[in-house]
Amino acid sequence: MTDLDTLSVNTIRGLCMDAVQKANSGHPGTPMGMAPVAYTLWQRFLRFDPADPIWPNRDRFVLSEGHASALLWSLLYLTGVRTVDPEYEVLGRPAVTLDDLKSFRQLDSRCPGHPEYRWTSGVETTTGPLGQGVATSVGMAIAGRWLAARFNRPDFPLFDFDVYALAGDGCMMEGVASEAASLAGHLRLSNLCWIYDSNRVTIEGHTDITFTEDVAARFLAYGWNVTTVADANDLDLISRAFHTFRAEAARPTLVLVHSHIGYGSPVEDSPKAHGAPFGPEGVRATKRVLGIPPDADFHVPDGVPDWFARGIGARGAELRTRWEKMFDAYRGAYPDFADELERIQRRELPDGWETALPTFPADPKGLATRDSSGQVLNAVAKAVPWILGGSADLTPSTKTRLTFGGAGDFQPGAWSGRNLHFGVREHAAAAVTNGMALTKLRPYWSGFLIFSDYAKAAIRLSALMEIPTVHIFTHDSIGVGEDGPTHQPVEQLAGLRATPGLLVFRPADANEVVETWRVVAALRREPAALVLSRQPLPTLDRDRLAAAGGVAWGAYVLADADADADRGEPEVILLATGSEVALALAAHEELTAGGIASRVVSMPCWELFDRQPREYRDQVLPPAVTRRVAVEEGSTFGWDRYVGPDGAIVGMHTFGASAPLKQLLTKFGFTPERVAQVARELVAPG
Amino acid sequence: MTDLDTLSVNTIRGLCMDAVQKANSGHPGTPMGMAPVAYTLWQRFLRFDPADPIWPNRDRFVLSEGHASALLWSLLYLTGVRTVDPEYEVLGRPAVTLDDLKSFRQLDSRCPGHPEYRWTSGVETTTGPLGQGVATSVGMAIAGRWLAARFNRPDFPLFDFDVYALAGDGCMMEGVASEAASLAGHLRLSNLCWIYDSNRVTIEGHTDITFTEDVAARFLAYGWNVTTVADANDLDLISRAFHTFRAEAARPTLVLVHSHIGYGSPVEDSPKAHGAPFGPEGVRATKRVLGIPPDADFHVPDGVPDWFARGIGARGAELRTRWEKMFDAYRGAYPDFADELERIQRRELPDGWETALPTFPADPKGLATRDSSGQVLNAVAKAVPWILGGSADLTPSTKTRLTFGGAGDFQPGAWSGRNLHFGVREHAAAAVTNGMALTKLRPYWSGFLIFSDYAKAAIRLSALMEIPTVHIFTHDSIGVGEDGPTHQPVEQLAGLRATPGLLVFRPADANEVVETWRVVAALRREPAALVLSRQPLPTLDRDRLAAAGGVAWGAYVLADADADADRGEPEVILLATGSEVALALAAHEELTAGGIASRVVSMPCWELFDRQPREYRDQVLPPAVTRRVAVEEGSTFGWDRYVGPDGAIVGMHTFGASAPLKQLLTKFGFTPERVAQVARELVAPG
Repeated sequence: MTDLDTLSVNTIRGLCMDAVQKANSGHPGTPMGMAPVAYTLWQRFLRFDPADPIWPNRDRFVLSEGHASALLWSLLYLTGVRTVDPEYEVLGRPAVTLDDLKSFRQLDSRCPGHPEYRWTSGVETTTGPLGQGVATSVGMAIAGRWLAARFNRPDFPLFDFDVYALAGDGCMMEGVASEAASLAGHLRLSNLCWIYDSNRVTIEGHTDITFTEDVAARFLAYGWNVTTVADANDLDLISRAFHTFRAEAARPTLVLVHSHIGYGSPVEDSPKAHGAPFGPEGVRATKRVLGIPPDADFHVPDGVPDWFARGIGARGAELRTRWEKMFDAYRGAYPDFADELERIQRRELPDGWETALPTFPADPKGLATRDSSGQVLNAVAKAVPWILGGSADLTPSTKTRLTFGGAGDFQPGAWSGRNLHFGVREHAAAAVTNGMALTKLRPYWSGFLIFSDYAKAAIRLSALMEIPTVHIFTHDSIGVGEDGPTHQPVEQLAGLRATPGLLVFRPADANEVVETWRVVAALRREPAALVLSRQPLPTLDRDRLAAAGGVAWGAYVLADADADADRGEPEVILLATGSEVALALAAHEELTAGGIASRVVSMPCWELFDRQPREYRDQVLPPAVTRRVAVEEGSTFGWDRYVGPDGAIVGMHTFGASAPLKQLLTKFGFTPERVAQVARELVAPG
Repeated sequence: MTDLDTLSVNTIRGLCMDAVQKANSGHPGTPMGMAPVAYTLWQRFLRFDPADPIWPNRDRFVLSEGHASALLWSLLYLTGVRTVDPEYEVLGRPAVTLDDLKSFRQLDSRCPGHPEYRWTSGVETTTGPLGQGVATSVGMAIAGRWLAARFNRPDFPLFDFDVYALAGDGCMMEGVASEAASLAGHLRLSNLCWIYDSNRVTIEGHTDITFTEDVAARFLAYGWNVTTVADANDLDLISRAFHTFRAEAARPTLVLVHSHIGYGSPVEDSPKAHGAPFGPEGVRATKRVLGIPPDADFHVPDGVPDWFARGIGARGAELRTRWEKMFDAYRGAYPDFADELERIQRRELPDGWETALPTFPADPKGLATRDSSGQVLNAVAKAVPWILGGSADLTPSTKTRLTFGGAGDFQPGAWSGRNLHFGVREHAAAAVTNGMALTKLRPYWSGFLIFSDYAKAAIRLSALMEIPTVHIFTHDSIGVGEDGPTHQPVEQLAGLRATPGLLVFRPADANEVVETWRVVAALRREPAALVLSRQPLPTLDRDRLAAAGGVAWGAYVLADADADADRGEPEVILLATGSEVALALAAHEELTAGGIASRVVSMPCWELFDRQPREYRDQVLPPAVTRRVAVEEGSTFGWDRYVGPDGAIVGMHTFGASAPLKQLLTKFGFTPERVAQVARELVAPG
């Protein structure tokens, strides 16, 4: 440990303390305790070039204990990480300036309260909700293995990056971390290293009050390698642990670091160090302990940035330029793979991928949208080799298996497989999929819609990060049938639709599924949720009805009353999604037979519809036609927006029940007769 | 193992096979494999009286792998469990008849696809979503310890029940189970026994494909006792394991049973045994293997019900009658405690508990609703000794600690404590709280509103089960401030409000908090979510404004325009909840000053408002007044219901940002000026 090591570590600590103090808000405890570990990792190990923070083969650093963001901001500042905009091109200016650090947690600062992907370059994933970062890191490690399997060639080791995640006691307690750790152990992801900041202090007190398990033993049980650092201030011990990680070829590694929250401060080892500034006096006292000039705020000794430049900076630049040279040669030897890789980095798809999309002939018997989606997914994934995914142990039901030749299973040693087995771990499945999307693959995961509840926190993060994770949910209503209310979603659609930035699709038939995938596969900055039926749905006759391409606008007129010479507008509009569109069509026919002019609007994606110009929206839902009936086998919550006070909603007001589907449809009123009756009552009350 | 043992086990298997076959739907695999274990537990160990399935000191049996419901239905049928209605009184008729078994999974059958609490007597908790049952069982074990600590006296061991939960590989993979197991290990709940049906087969195949951790080692790491049963068909080994559990005084016990899914059937040990009937031929073949007459459906040999009656029936009846005698004597010795216990069983509160409710004087500075709720909670909990709870490591922030004398911490050996430390385990916290509510305590748990996402699946179950779990969520909006978008809820309110049967309260000030608790504490069959602010809110001057008692009706007119002789109705209505009510009042004052007659409606609980008679609703929101502005620092999703097409919503359309609250309010438009401006534009469109 040199003087410059010590000086650097304490410079980080000083910056963190000062940032929190100036903001009068934030979490100084972890940065003080873990600065030496983060410093050692970045300065001595991380293969990361601050000048190009999106170099594809960089090691990833995930700050899972995201409240310690000041630690990351200090590192980004001191190492001079450059800005990337938006995630495709490196710009010259620094990602974090000293002014940014000084405006920590202020509006528009590049140093917000928690790391936010896209907002600050150098942030590999948004963190803060505990457990998410470590779970997401597993997806990055999976992506690393897959990229290596697909692209590496003799003499061209394009991908061999490692993934590090820094986690606290909180992360270790979260179920999503347990799920992800179990999966990582099974997959033998030896490119994954979690660093456990074991300071034994959480918000309510010492971990003795609730967290007394043997974490090391637990991780050994998962099949991990575990190594311990007894003193978080001993850089040599820390280095030894990282060497142990690098030498481990068959298992992920947990580096268990005994650390001291708020190290050096008057509140060291106390919960008080966690989430509040030390106060001006406390900061000064701490600085005196650490040998930092007590009255110099945001003090950066002259030699420190240069020391980082000579460490991580020089190492990263050399590795990156060497890699770029290698890639140039690779481009010559393997032009197709090089092209693929460049498309992946730019989030582009292969030319002509859309020609792979099937069309489905009209068929009154039809097929479940889970089935048609499975077929379309297979066609698209065959055309786009970096689409891969799996299910939370429901593949035979969600129909998401890639079955074409060579797709195979992703397993230890079989890293090119494209079918993952996430196990009964929905939350980790979503978070892991996010990690793969952050590594620019196009991943999906699947489960029953009801289990979106288990994964909601990770689904939300995909929306917040603006990454194109694909969440596939089948068994989307009381259509589940006999499994009953525990498995029948009711409020899940509303919860997903209320999530900003998430595109929720509920296609009505096989051809709407095709059009859904046409939109979804091409997404670059938006996650999507596909909501699919268990039960067969007729494939609509598009010769008689509007084409399914309307999916792209979110909602479209599927069937209309014969134009009335006088008026041109229907008397009543039936709005429906998914499995209820065919029901609305049947009601429409009944109404037509009874002389009532009705229109059927299919609304597969509310979010896209809301983005259309008012002119289009008014064309689909003419404001003058206020008699509207919405039909959806889900909560009525949210439908008022389209139905208005003069309309009616045929939806769910309670939980479902266990019975064959037909009985449930009658019990809950999802029959053409009932829908037509509701419409008739609107048209002619009484 | 006697002939009657064998006959009983195979009778259960035959009934399960037949039920699934007749329904042509269901999960026969686990019942076939685990019938001997369930049989042994019920017949030889479970202290449960079929004639009184709500006897307070009964052992609890939780079928966490709820898809195996046929196993439970067969046991309820064969042991002759009686009906309870609704959960307070034992009725004579059987809970499950042979006809019910024959209508397994049909509409209105007492034998639905998954066990549903309240619907079938003998079901201790609704299960199906994996992991929930085991997590809930931890709450039952906690309640058992607490009841014993509060009510047991020398010579009066009123409470010493055990809690058994049967779990499969799926449950073991779920994060919520990991969280709950870690907590149970910390709490040293030696009254808790999880039986792990380790058949190594899940829907996608052998567990080798994704679940290769050492589960026994993992549970040892949590601090559990682990014992193994190498052969699920060996009743003596099984018995020995349960004796081991009973002898263990310091740790929960995991009984790891090596079992065979679909035992005896042609699809034994195959994923095909999991979720589909064996087919008529398969059923017959299996019956031949097991010595069941192959062509006798729903075959119940004469001696079997009687054998159960002489086993669990006789044992349970004796234990229960002995307990009732003991309780009669206890009533004489400790009349107050006996009264308490009887109230608990009937879900009644102590007489006069409401007198404990404080009132808060008007105060423009005011206090956060998390603070006022903490004060009210303390007052109520002091008056109701069986209110207890805790937080997912956020007590200092959620203000839910019970601080009065004697409240103390609930810890191993300190079982009478009323403050639980759930750790950073939101999902388990909610599920454990459900388990405590199922044991008729009045429990709560708390966290930040954003983390309701982590616990959603358990929150939903509280609504589905109709149990009065109290979910307390603070930090309910961008009011979170500097922590930024990862911690600022947006869509969470919509998701909770869309959940059937859940009462969601967002009180506007301290006195609305009081009225919220007045409603919530008295709930018997409904869960509630309290949504509270981090930031201080003025305590409204109720001399000038309407009384807070309007909370009971869900929404009420808080402030109104001076009655206009001509019209009597306002020009515009401002609707708001929680922290935005004061904002609406300020806008109202600005509008009044500008000569516009506006009304402010506080809407703390939409669900209660929707239950009011139309007359009241139209009084609060006169249909003729279509110019309405809703203000809420959350997703606008759902507000259209009250605002209508002529109204406007000032809400969140994106995620939040990291900054001090004041800056965020301006950025996102939550200022009196903006709200007044929106209202003015409705009244006189510019």
